[in-house]
Amino acid sequence: MIAKPNHLLTQVPDGILPKPLHQVLLERRATRHFSAEEIPDSTLRAILELTAQSPSGYNLQPWRFILVTEGGNRERLRKAAMDQSKVGEAPVVVIAVGMKNESRAMLAEIVQETADFGAIPQDAVASTVKQAAGFLDAMPMDVWVNRHTMIAVTTMMLVAESFGYDTAPMEGFDPEAVKREFEIPDEAEVVALLAIGRSKEPRKPYPGRLPLSRIVYSERFGNVWEVSE
Amino acid sequence: MIAKPNHLLTQVPDGILPKPLHQVLLERRATRHFSAEEIPDSTLRAILELTAQSPSGYNLQPWRFILVTEGGNRERLRKAAMDQSKVGEAPVVVIAVGMKNESRAMLAEIVQETADFGAIPQDAVASTVKQAAGFLDAMPMDVWVNRHTMIAVTTMMLVAESFGYDTAPMEGFDPEAVKREFEIPDEAEVVALLAIGRSKEPRKPYPGRLPLSRIVYSERFGNVWEVSE
Repeated sequence: MIAKPNHLLTQVPDGILPKPLHQVLLERRATRHFSAEEIPDSTLRAILELTAQSPSGYNLQPWRFILVTEGGNRERLRKAAMDQSKVGEAPVVVIAVGMKNESRAMLAEIVQETADFGAIPQDAVASTVKQAAGFLDAMPMDVWVNRHTMIAVTTMMLVAESFGYDTAPMEGFDPEAVKREFEIPDEAEVVALLAIGRSKEPRKPYPGRLPLSRIVYSERFGNVWEVSE
Repeated sequence: MIAKPNHLLTQVPDGILPKPLHQVLLERRATRHFSAEEIPDSTLRAILELTAQSPSGYNLQPWRFILVTEGGNRERLRKAAMDQSKVGEAPVVVIAVGMKNESRAMLAEIVQETADFGAIPQDAVASTVKQAAGFLDAMPMDVWVNRHTMIAVTTMMLVAESFGYDTAPMEGFDPEAVKREFEIPDEAEVVALLAIGRSKEPRKPYPGRLPLSRIVYSERFGNVWEVSE
């Protein structure tokens, strides 16, 4: 494993002044149509390095990302993704997958390296591996990798938006077709697609949100949080 | 549904100067022990209003959050969460759940309101409801609500951190016990817990990350992205 990319603390690429997160959350809208403007490799690399900082259980990092940029490949992906035109338009479409077996198989290696980084004591390696193995054995791995991969996809979307790019997360695709077209192992879960680029039209209108009184409860389900009123 | 909380663009609560997202991602570590310092309601409300801006398929917003703050309730949650001491310590522990049936049942209402907000044409309501219903019928709803709820949990974690708070996402809990103790309907998926507060000790050491060459591929799975080297 590798150390933290601390250079990104002081040196955001390509002269970008990142937008604050609260502004991103209020201004972001799923993009319907992208321009052909490319994303510089240095920016894409920074987005991915920051995405890689997402948290995961036992630091297993079960997410993998396939960057689809070549025109013919984006066309093949579009056909596997309900023919959504943005897949053919965006300069980068990321296929986010979660590895059920590969991640599980990396457990001992990753826990050992986590100890080598000083994050857990060396004498806790064996017990941590044992405890984690028991936890993972009891967990449905499809659910587990879906949850984890969505942490990373959400992070990637928000980082790309904070760097001034537009994004479109997509859930409409045929996972078997995506696996077949992009040589993804059968054990992987195809979790989401994320298109990144520049919108070629103004943001679509805000569609409204449920009020907090319908999504936030206090102390027990169904008990409306007073502050939400 | 309600309009966008635009006041948060210019007025972040309680005099907080939010940290940039790239700094959050590089500095965040899961918190092991929390101090007793409370989170002001105004800050908690802003975190939740921003979390509510998360994207969802057909804008269904299937996430619900139970704020557990009362000492006895945190103790009950701790027992259902592998006895993790931070659940008893943090001033707020959020139980994040995803609604499989309730969300599905809200489809027609939400699509109509989305049209009332101008985000889709009124004459597209019927066809959108029909298309969405077909999509959801074909999707395993447990996977669907897990993915969506993790978008919101990740957003909540990053917003709380950008406001200067510390967080601990948790996946170690007994979902049936959590449901029983907090009156959560059987149809719900308990997806994650998120403790929010202030760490009472320095951040734990960085545990390392896989290099991009092991998590990012170009055009097809297994084909290392040259820029990652």
